[in-house]
Amino acid sequence: MTELEQLGARARAVEHIVSILTSDQKKKGLFLAAEALENRKEEILAANQEDIEVAEKNGMKESLLDRLRLTEERIAGIAKGIRQVAELEDPIGEVLSMKKRPNGLLIGQKRVPIGVIGMIYEARPNVTADAFALCFKTGNPVLLKGGSDAICSNKKMVEIIRQALKKGDLPEDAVILIESVDRATTKELMRLNQYVDVLIPRGSAGLIRSVVENSTIPVIETGSGNCHIYVDSSANFQMALDIIYNAKTQRIGVCNSCESLVLHKDIVEEFVPRLVEKLKGVEIRGDKIVKQYSDKVMEATEEDWGTEYLDYIISVKTVENIEEAIGHINKYNTKHSEAIITESYVNAEKFLNEVDAAVVYVNASTRFTDGFEFGFGAEIGISTQKLHARGPMGLKELTSLKYIVYGSGQVR
Amino acid sequence: MTELEQLGARARAVEHIVSILTSDQKKKGLFLAAEALENRKEEILAANQEDIEVAEKNGMKESLLDRLRLTEERIAGIAKGIRQVAELEDPIGEVLSMKKRPNGLLIGQKRVPIGVIGMIYEARPNVTADAFALCFKTGNPVLLKGGSDAICSNKKMVEIIRQALKKGDLPEDAVILIESVDRATTKELMRLNQYVDVLIPRGSAGLIRSVVENSTIPVIETGSGNCHIYVDSSANFQMALDIIYNAKTQRIGVCNSCESLVLHKDIVEEFVPRLVEKLKGVEIRGDKIVKQYSDKVMEATEEDWGTEYLDYIISVKTVENIEEAIGHINKYNTKHSEAIITESYVNAEKFLNEVDAAVVYVNASTRFTDGFEFGFGAEIGISTQKLHARGPMGLKELTSLKYIVYGSGQVR
Repeated sequence: MTELEQLGARARAVEHIVSILTSDQKKKGLFLAAEALENRKEEILAANQEDIEVAEKNGMKESLLDRLRLTEERIAGIAKGIRQVAELEDPIGEVLSMKKRPNGLLIGQKRVPIGVIGMIYEARPNVTADAFALCFKTGNPVLLKGGSDAICSNKKMVEIIRQALKKGDLPEDAVILIESVDRATTKELMRLNQYVDVLIPRGSAGLIRSVVENSTIPVIETGSGNCHIYVDSSANFQMALDIIYNAKTQRIGVCNSCESLVLHKDIVEEFVPRLVEKLKGVEIRGDKIVKQYSDKVMEATEEDWGTEYLDYIISVKTVENIEEAIGHINKYNTKHSEAIITESYVNAEKFLNEVDAAVVYVNASTRFTDGFEFGFGAEIGISTQKLHARGPMGLKELTSLKYIVYGSGQVR
Repeated sequence: MTELEQLGARARAVEHIVSILTSDQKKKGLFLAAEALENRKEEILAANQEDIEVAEKNGMKESLLDRLRLTEERIAGIAKGIRQVAELEDPIGEVLSMKKRPNGLLIGQKRVPIGVIGMIYEARPNVTADAFALCFKTGNPVLLKGGSDAICSNKKMVEIIRQALKKGDLPEDAVILIESVDRATTKELMRLNQYVDVLIPRGSAGLIRSVVENSTIPVIETGSGNCHIYVDSSANFQMALDIIYNAKTQRIGVCNSCESLVLHKDIVEEFVPRLVEKLKGVEIRGDKIVKQYSDKVMEATEEDWGTEYLDYIISVKTVENIEEAIGHINKYNTKHSEAIITESYVNAEKFLNEVDAAVVYVNASTRFTDGFEFGFGAEIGISTQKLHARGPMGLKELTSLKYIVYGSGQVR
């Protein structure tokens, strides 16, 4: 057995115990972990300082350093997050759609844990606590493979969480950190089918692509967002401008921000000048028709239609009709979040039916694609794949369903 | 573009059209296809005869030849199967769990097609029609990669189905046969992420394993079944014997047949002689305790506990209590179907909660794990994986859900 296989076997060994913990036991474990992380914040800060020093020496850029850095306030935030997850309703054990068959069998679906979850992520120590909380709440042991730059912080946090679980007579191996930081270990993890039931990569598009391409274990994929807003000919202009302004500028670096507008040709003349006015500070890249109505608009190239800027830039495309809008969006989007602004019932329904994306909106900002905004109380990520989970993922998406059948002697 | 990429691109090109076909259009397409297959049965039989002759020359064994062979009656059965799928309720468009958020957003989930489906299967020409019917009904274009031994039959059937769709003004490319039969094409298909959204392998364990190991496209995996029946100390013996007899002998070569019994130690003395009597003609391989009570019982080895016999053989294990029974089952099962025979409420609930399998039964035969028996009206296969679909898969398992959000100008 390799070292990694030994870790996998340990996670598998506690799978059954973790899967049948009561809701109260899981809640207790989460509260103990949150408390311990707060109580031992000095140790965590010291370990994090080691990571920061190495990273600075290696010339890590400030935006990444900021994600790696822990502070007293951030540790309090982490503990608060764990307590919030603790207070959520336990999804495990719920029974769905129980039905009686003509032969008297009662068949229903019971929500159960998935099994051992492998998390692969980058140098963000908060993900360590977050992943533990979500997996523990759903009865899944988790193997954590964090970025090498955060190794000291992760070791310390996982040590503290494991000790807290032990204190509560709960299985420590519910959370296991893979301490080896070489790439070979990550590759091995992606093929550890015997011990890992699902892999969840969290981080950059490159990381996710690498996991999708190399894993033989099922992957829950979170994707990037080239999100569009289509302004229909019947749109309320003020509503359209407010939604566009919000979706583009409220937070630019996130996957559910708006990257591209699609305008019905009949409104371009009146709408574009108001748009330019509203989006001051945002670079607008439009097609030839859009450019006619404002000299502040730059010319868009083919590449713009497929680009997720994550910046103060937006592309604008004119279309003849809603069919062309839907065709354009389905061609260039990343199947994340798409919105139509319209007063037309027919066009609203057509857009909802025909646009292929995880979330499709009528008259609302794409920024709502989020587990908390959707009322899940937690978020593992936003799935842009179509199997198992699509859109914001909460606790339920870390569960599976098994059929339970109540009989009274039935045979075929 | 390779030839396969061209086929993938054609499937992708009709994805949108196929996804928004009305229920009536899909029904019409299926009825036209069924009718055309019946009307042109002579052509199909001639093409099938070519396959049979080649297979015979190559020394194919009779059981496989039987699966490859089409007859007038079998073609009628295929047409009937397509018409049955046509008559099922269209799952596409259903909206689930619409909820209102405090900000007024109405958020629900709409059932939609998955996209382009790739089917990889062996030399069973009936799967060709079956896969087309299920995918077309759910609005998914399908790329078919059948076994090379059935290539003439598949070409003819797909030609007929495509012409039937064309006659109904429906997109022919909703079903495309990959005619190249070399292994390199299969490997290429498993990495055709740009054009294929999900792969469904149907066939032997070896085929499925190969797809799981090599595919970078999400796979819906159907698995083998080492199914157990646990006879609790409180069991009604007559019920237990009837269920065991049914689950073992009603059809031996299927994944939901019973391969192993687990007996509570308190009942062994009385139960084993009755079991031996009931299972005449079945080889019983028991542990030492079981052997004590009948000289007709052979001794089981460790290997027996993990073996799916698909034959008139059954293994029998004695346990101290229900905890040991659950532990034994969770260790050796393939997560398919497991049953307990008991009169105890506590043990029934414990077994349902703690056994890890796609379907868990109380007092019923494992043979019920089947899409038709579950009332789905169709079956794509039985999933033993935990993501997306678990247990018998009907039409719903060929769909995805997208969030639809009705707003009135909401921003964050």
